[in-house]
Amino acid sequence: MESRNFHRLLFLFIGVAVVLVVTWVHIPYAPPPNATDLLDCTTNSPWCTSKNRFQSKQPAATLKYPPKPKHHHVSDTPHHPLDPLTVQELNKVRTILSSHPLFKSSPSYALHSVVLQEPDKNLVLKWNKGDPLLPRQAFVIARVKGISHLLTVDIDTREVTVHETWSASGYPTMTIEDMTSSVWAPLANPAFNRSILSRGVDLKDLACLPISLGWYGKNEEGRRLIKIQCYSSKDTANFYMRPIEGLTVLLDMDTKEVVEISDKGRKIPIPKATNTDYRYSSQTHNQQKLKLINPISIEQPEGPSFSVEDDHLVKWANWEFHVKPDPRAGVIISRAKVRDPDSGEMRNVMYKGFTSELFVPYMDPTDAWYFKTYMDAGEYGFGFQAMPLDPLNDCPRNAYYMDGVFAAGDGTPYVRSNMICVFESYAGDIGWRHSESPITGLEIIEVRPKVTLVVRMVASVANYDYIVDWEFQTDGLIRIKVGLSGILMVKGTPYENMNQMQGQENLYGTLLSENIIGVIHDHYITFYLDLDVDGPDNSFVKVNIQRQETSPGESPRRSYLKATRNVAKTEKDAQIKLKLYDPSEFHVINPTQKTRVGNPVGYKVVPGGTAASLLRHDDPPQKRGAFTNNQIWVTPYNQSEQWAGGLFVYQNQGEDTLAVWSDRDRPIENKDIVMWYTLGFHHVPCQEDFPVMPTVSSSFDLKPVNFFESNPILGIPPNVEKDLPVCKPAASS
Amino acid sequence: MESRNFHRLLFLFIGVAVVLVVTWVHIPYAPPPNATDLLDCTTNSPWCTSKNRFQSKQPAATLKYPPKPKHHHVSDTPHHPLDPLTVQELNKVRTILSSHPLFKSSPSYALHSVVLQEPDKNLVLKWNKGDPLLPRQAFVIARVKGISHLLTVDIDTREVTVHETWSASGYPTMTIEDMTSSVWAPLANPAFNRSILSRGVDLKDLACLPISLGWYGKNEEGRRLIKIQCYSSKDTANFYMRPIEGLTVLLDMDTKEVVEISDKGRKIPIPKATNTDYRYSSQTHNQQKLKLINPISIEQPEGPSFSVEDDHLVKWANWEFHVKPDPRAGVIISRAKVRDPDSGEMRNVMYKGFTSELFVPYMDPTDAWYFKTYMDAGEYGFGFQAMPLDPLNDCPRNAYYMDGVFAAGDGTPYVRSNMICVFESYAGDIGWRHSESPITGLEIIEVRPKVTLVVRMVASVANYDYIVDWEFQTDGLIRIKVGLSGILMVKGTPYENMNQMQGQENLYGTLLSENIIGVIHDHYITFYLDLDVDGPDNSFVKVNIQRQETSPGESPRRSYLKATRNVAKTEKDAQIKLKLYDPSEFHVINPTQKTRVGNPVGYKVVPGGTAASLLRHDDPPQKRGAFTNNQIWVTPYNQSEQWAGGLFVYQNQGEDTLAVWSDRDRPIENKDIVMWYTLGFHHVPCQEDFPVMPTVSSSFDLKPVNFFESNPILGIPPNVEKDLPVCKPAASS
Repeated sequence: MESRNFHRLLFLFIGVAVVLVVTWVHIPYAPPPNATDLLDCTTNSPWCTSKNRFQSKQPAATLKYPPKPKHHHVSDTPHHPLDPLTVQELNKVRTILSSHPLFKSSPSYALHSVVLQEPDKNLVLKWNKGDPLLPRQAFVIARVKGISHLLTVDIDTREVTVHETWSASGYPTMTIEDMTSSVWAPLANPAFNRSILSRGVDLKDLACLPISLGWYGKNEEGRRLIKIQCYSSKDTANFYMRPIEGLTVLLDMDTKEVVEISDKGRKIPIPKATNTDYRYSSQTHNQQKLKLINPISIEQPEGPSFSVEDDHLVKWANWEFHVKPDPRAGVIISRAKVRDPDSGEMRNVMYKGFTSELFVPYMDPTDAWYFKTYMDAGEYGFGFQAMPLDPLNDCPRNAYYMDGVFAAGDGTPYVRSNMICVFESYAGDIGWRHSESPITGLEIIEVRPKVTLVVRMVASVANYDYIVDWEFQTDGLIRIKVGLSGILMVKGTPYENMNQMQGQENLYGTLLSENIIGVIHDHYITFYLDLDVDGPDNSFVKVNIQRQETSPGESPRRSYLKATRNVAKTEKDAQIKLKLYDPSEFHVINPTQKTRVGNPVGYKVVPGGTAASLLRHDDPPQKRGAFTNNQIWVTPYNQSEQWAGGLFVYQNQGEDTLAVWSDRDRPIENKDIVMWYTLGFHHVPCQEDFPVMPTVSSSFDLKPVNFFESNPILGIPPNVEKDLPVCKPAASS
Repeated sequence: MESRNFHRLLFLFIGVAVVLVVTWVHIPYAPPPNATDLLDCTTNSPWCTSKNRFQSKQPAATLKYPPKPKHHHVSDTPHHPLDPLTVQELNKVRTILSSHPLFKSSPSYALHSVVLQEPDKNLVLKWNKGDPLLPRQAFVIARVKGISHLLTVDIDTREVTVHETWSASGYPTMTIEDMTSSVWAPLANPAFNRSILSRGVDLKDLACLPISLGWYGKNEEGRRLIKIQCYSSKDTANFYMRPIEGLTVLLDMDTKEVVEISDKGRKIPIPKATNTDYRYSSQTHNQQKLKLINPISIEQPEGPSFSVEDDHLVKWANWEFHVKPDPRAGVIISRAKVRDPDSGEMRNVMYKGFTSELFVPYMDPTDAWYFKTYMDAGEYGFGFQAMPLDPLNDCPRNAYYMDGVFAAGDGTPYVRSNMICVFESYAGDIGWRHSESPITGLEIIEVRPKVTLVVRMVASVANYDYIVDWEFQTDGLIRIKVGLSGILMVKGTPYENMNQMQGQENLYGTLLSENIIGVIHDHYITFYLDLDVDGPDNSFVKVNIQRQETSPGESPRRSYLKATRNVAKTEKDAQIKLKLYDPSEFHVINPTQKTRVGNPVGYKVVPGGTAASLLRHDDPPQKRGAFTNNQIWVTPYNQSEQWAGGLFVYQNQGEDTLAVWSDRDRPIENKDIVMWYTLGFHHVPCQEDFPVMPTVSSSFDLKPVNFFESNPILGIPPNVEKDLPVCKPAASS
């Protein structure tokens, strides 16, 4: 290399190192001498976002329902046994750990997870508001000198009460520091820098992503590894559309050493920046700034119908439930109860529901792509990736926002503002109706509107945005919806047009634009659903809908459908693949609670559109993602069985998945059981997905089935004119 | 019978006859001497509903967007070749027919259908606003002396240009008069009246329904028959919950003679009226009138973004399409085009889309139930059964209402007010988004709201309410959604509790309340979708997603998914059963139109949750409903192939269904083709469905796939505070 370039490179390297030290890498391995209550957001912006940035510009006094006062959380105290650890509690944990032998003796360590250790379920079930709070404990996953440790910390007694080391495969969820320091580490490697420069990319335009490598054999075992792939961010914010194709760096995440650089893409051009930017400020052509719709808003002149008590307890219409952010699951809904219209009592529906794991395999077996088989909750932390929601666009104007309080890699608490929103939605839909037809001539028309409550979070896992909604209806139905938006992961190619393709070549996806292939991939999102229908002891019933043939002479009909109820006795009875031509309903019932006329009370899971994984079961990613081998599973409640891919997912070998647990074939009849449902998408990209994709959604429902004696919303009133607001454009007022 | 009862009965009979003459039966068999423009609604209420009844109570001046002025339609003229026949045109047809030999010579006849005979598609495609209107023709189905006739009437030349008689099986859609006169006819039969009285029901409390009997063998052939079953309407508006179980009257619809009375239910009590009423005025208990939700409204301070030109042409955002009511299909969407953001041109998407047929088989083979296998469009007229929508509850406040103008049995036009509504919907959902995560540290958040346009109609076919929505999105997607609400068809039973059941007895459904069984049934709604993607000549492509195994040593991956495109050459290539474990995408492409990078432009059908018919193919109802043998079909465009169950469905034998056409295996590659999609529901009733069911919905999407060069809504703006309205409760203003 020329002397000038070498000096330039050296300077750049030093500069990057300085930047690394000052900005991007907050050394996670020793607590700062004077530990502050809260991470200083001005110097630690990557994981810290100030609520100020997205505050409504309108003065609070003129807003109908002003946003709650600035809330720094430093004085928060827990009110409910399931409330997440507060700032003060996280700081206590940090202090307790710093004096624990394991950490005291180590110059460096990282806390990969510091969350509430939820109390035993039977204690939580017995607890009522006003009772003393149950003992507060933290569950900590730490890595010290290359070993993963699990600790339980009793916050009240200030003791570490449990300490185990992890001996099976896999590593904990990456810390934010892991991810941000990994993307910069290759810059310390001259061979890497040469590769970048040889592709025509300036180091200042480099944007790199940390890509979980899965598990693909022995040579990847024994150390914590990550793969880095890079993009050019020149002339666009959408660097994802400008991959430096084929260049993969294998990095040791702990030593930050480059283990291997593979470059198979030297002949592949970097796609151009033209038309890739999605920022509104960058839409230069007049026609690109489309004003298609007049302003439209959901208005509630008397304010919303819901309240949030003690920061986490939501009460709306006939529902009540606890909501909390979680660094791994994103949103956790707990203690969901619905009011019985006859007795007036709140009845148990779901003890706990959350996103347990994702599985997102890409369908390209070549060198730079085969390993892209993400498990976003266990590897990256679905909640860690949840960015602040944009008021008025992510959620409508009447939304309430909830912040997340998480621990950084050294245990320092930080606030993820506006992480979850709660709002009432009215799409103009119908709750129930009946009008009499001309046949009877009765002049009856009875119609009721449908208003729902949505709890929303969005996880932006690098390129993809996952919108997760828990939507509650007054008829007792819960709809869980996943929306996909954001940016595709694309592959560079020499091709600029399909007519350049030779014969049967496999692109592994769709040519989206010149030199850009959208690679085919699947998304699976597996939900943990601990339904407790009128109490914890439930059964799982398959109501199989089958053709019944009539006997000769029995009827002019040759066939009809019959519903046969089969109670699942053990786990293997509840490993369900959905079949259009062998359909069933899937009920979780309370076998000891019956309606007045004798039907067991229950809730059923109603699938919407979905997809199933077709990979070979012995394919390494499918072993790790084996929880997608079936669409529905049921297991006996077990506090250690929460994460469908296993507790330690990163680089694990799939020995501790939901599929492994379920094959133990344990009894699940009239016991506390947990249902698991996987929502799937096959995604063959299309040009409309470029450069950012319009939201595509799918959902499934939890619907009461003989839970109520009759329609629980028979008596709700219709909308009437006098209740509607009088509105004027803001400009005219 | 005692003398007093006999006299009472005779008096009642005479009274009923008088009522029949005056109110319920508008003799359809001869035109009134002085034919008025419009049916007099005060004497003909069964099929005629005045718009006044549901007018907004608020004075028009204070409404932001006042309802359009009272519109009696008598002066309407057509503006578009596809506009439905106007009042004036219907009257012209009636006059033309009355002087035609066929009708002139007959003392009585009935017009079962008088609708626009749509001009040839190629003429409609060439027509532009400003061109002379294409010749207006009516298509008439009439029954004269027991024969079904098909006539084409040229309205301009005042000539009958085509006249055929129908020789295959089946009868036309019933007229309203058929239905209303049939339900009263049994009262003229003493044996019937005795049966009713013996069940303890007063004749004044009788409510009867006309039930299509399907086709179940030779002894039902040769005459037009109907089955009547009755209910007690004492003490409730919800007579459906009080069946006089097991009593079935077979009636000749033309002679009104009772052919047979079957009573298998003498030991079955009539369920009580308690808790069956659904009217708001009848909700007596305080707790039954639930005020769960604060008022909520969709507001548009600058008014809606859509316009309706010439009564039928909707223009919204980047969409334009023609909407019209139809007595058989309900709603017909035609000439749907979307604006290309690059060229600014309107591009063809769909020539015509509508509900072609329904199939609703009940799953009980016993005497009073086996024949309940409805085909609601062809038997009852899906549009005929569409009742006026309730403003503020069926549709939100910003909705536009469109009336239907139909012909009564004698050809007299009448208005079905508020039959269709059009409104913009904002549920608080996200159109597209991307925010950068902590990994990259870029502070970017771009979010755009999702606003849609809904075209809605509700058909109340006796007990059931079908909500059909065509929902348009600015990203080019069309969602077709069917919601089920209304009242179940139930069966009386001696049982009051499940613990009274002996062993393995088959209830054929669920015990919903004392003495009431909700019988299991399916719903299938088949849609006709004449997509014309950038023009009429299209191909149907199955993009099959299959597992590909890697060769030894090829990759650390053992498997991945590959998408293989298979162009359907003939109809048998496009008889599709959806399979979760053998998935495909289903594209309608224009093989001669490619994007800049060479992908064929297309739209794909994306199924949501659905169901498939499991009945034996040789079961009589399944022969008639054979269009549900597959979920997707594709046929070559043929103007005579519109109704999936055949043109004449009532009592037909299934010789002219979509399945029969498709088995002709005609070429469908690079031709004008039509896609058929069937949305299905298996309905095992539950107590929540009693006494009226909360809405259950399912949908499917038509989504652009490489239709646009890139995301068509990249450039839309986000919501900003200044555009939101300032609202106050009406009471305070």
